[in-house]
Amino acid sequence: MVTRVDAGGRHRRPDQLIVEEPMTMQLDGHVVSTTMRTPGHDFELAVGFCFTEGLLAGAPVTGVRYCADGPAVASEFNVVTVETGGRAPAPTPRLGTTSSSCGLCGRDQIDELTSRLEPLPVTECPIALDVLAAMPAKVLDGQGLFASTGAVHAAAAFDPRGDVVLTREDVGRHNAVDKVIGALMLAGRSPATEPMGLFVSGRASIEMVQKAWAAGFGALVAVSAPTALAVEAARRANLTLVGFVRPDGYNVYVPA
Amino acid sequence: MVTRVDAGGRHRRPDQLIVEEPMTMQLDGHVVSTTMRTPGHDFELAVGFCFTEGLLAGAPVTGVRYCADGPAVASEFNVVTVETGGRAPAPTPRLGTTSSSCGLCGRDQIDELTSRLEPLPVTECPIALDVLAAMPAKVLDGQGLFASTGAVHAAAAFDPRGDVVLTREDVGRHNAVDKVIGALMLAGRSPATEPMGLFVSGRASIEMVQKAWAAGFGALVAVSAPTALAVEAARRANLTLVGFVRPDGYNVYVPA
Repeated sequence: MVTRVDAGGRHRRPDQLIVEEPMTMQLDGHVVSTTMRTPGHDFELAVGFCFTEGLLAGAPVTGVRYCADGPAVASEFNVVTVETGGRAPAPTPRLGTTSSSCGLCGRDQIDELTSRLEPLPVTECPIALDVLAAMPAKVLDGQGLFASTGAVHAAAAFDPRGDVVLTREDVGRHNAVDKVIGALMLAGRSPATEPMGLFVSGRASIEMVQKAWAAGFGALVAVSAPTALAVEAARRANLTLVGFVRPDGYNVYVPA
Repeated sequence: MVTRVDAGGRHRRPDQLIVEEPMTMQLDGHVVSTTMRTPGHDFELAVGFCFTEGLLAGAPVTGVRYCADGPAVASEFNVVTVETGGRAPAPTPRLGTTSSSCGLCGRDQIDELTSRLEPLPVTECPIALDVLAAMPAKVLDGQGLFASTGAVHAAAAFDPRGDVVLTREDVGRHNAVDKVIGALMLAGRSPATEPMGLFVSGRASIEMVQKAWAAGFGALVAVSAPTALAVEAARRANLTLVGFVRPDGYNVYVPA
């Protein structure tokens, strides 16, 4: 229940709140990260995260399961293990969370991406700009949680005709993207083999470009602004980057 | 430069992008976190983070400095050390980043906060609701980066009359809040001794409630929705929580 105050005065009414719960992700039993996420599509989230962060290093996923080492309580569904049978390298502390180096900067991040990921194939325009511009309205139409809570972010994969392949929502922007990518992987589909674009309901930060690049999307469409680092990374990736997509127009950041 | 596409066709125009750079925070030389932030007010960010995360444990800050162990390059300004002369306890890996426990859940987070922080003093209403409702317009008027880039979040401290004490902007929501709290601390002011409210331009997640609670704010005002965990934590804190503040009204989540 919430107290609503408006021109009609004060009144109590039911309210639906978005749920956030921490989820710890493990790779072959090693903890790799804990994220606050909207429960649901947890296996997709864990697989997408391990893949887009480069942790799989090409190893195939052989299984995904909830932690079951403890007593059977609801919170055991907040720990997910991605299994590769030990074929993925043992995860090391990630750049950006525990690095003690003096001199980390945004350029280091781009260099790290560039050393890990090949630039995407250059095409004249992987998906027509007018298709990209139409994506927000198409995706947000199907954004159920947002409609009821106003608190979640959406990400979606779409094909070159602009048809939505799948949409995922989460309280965390990065999680929504990881869920989309994990879902495609678990379904045996991949933007690297089948041309697809990625839509995000918020800003395009460098992590969004990283994830889109790692997964092989040809274009990233953001409702809001990209950051300077995101634009630079997208240029290195040959990733089409469109931002501020609104009914009256949009901005193309890459290609320049 | 960006290519703008709208009803007037395609045209090239200058564009201002928001800058994000990683910043590593250290406490007495121990790395505690790395965050992507908008450069500027870095000392405030580091002090606010160490305080609101409970890392200072009451120890006074005796100094804040950029890392200067390496060669004098620009990126050394991406490492900030907060000093307490060793009076703060040695930081341990934080819950939520490297925990290997099976069974972490949102309730554990609230229990951790409740064990660390006393509930705020109960007052009938620390700041009048109509003052809270007027904050977004007041703060966003002064939000310079947002106006030019559309990509940053704002946080602000305000007094019981609704006058803005200070505003900070950052590409990261949490960073904007830490900068506000760090700035108050470094200026010798504190919402725990002088009644203040905290405004955030986005959602109210549990971390926002945690930071507002730790700093002693009497009220948290969010332009967007709170999460379920945030509402529960605010109840435990006796923190007035108002969301969806828009020109036509607002929602009061706490007190119920």
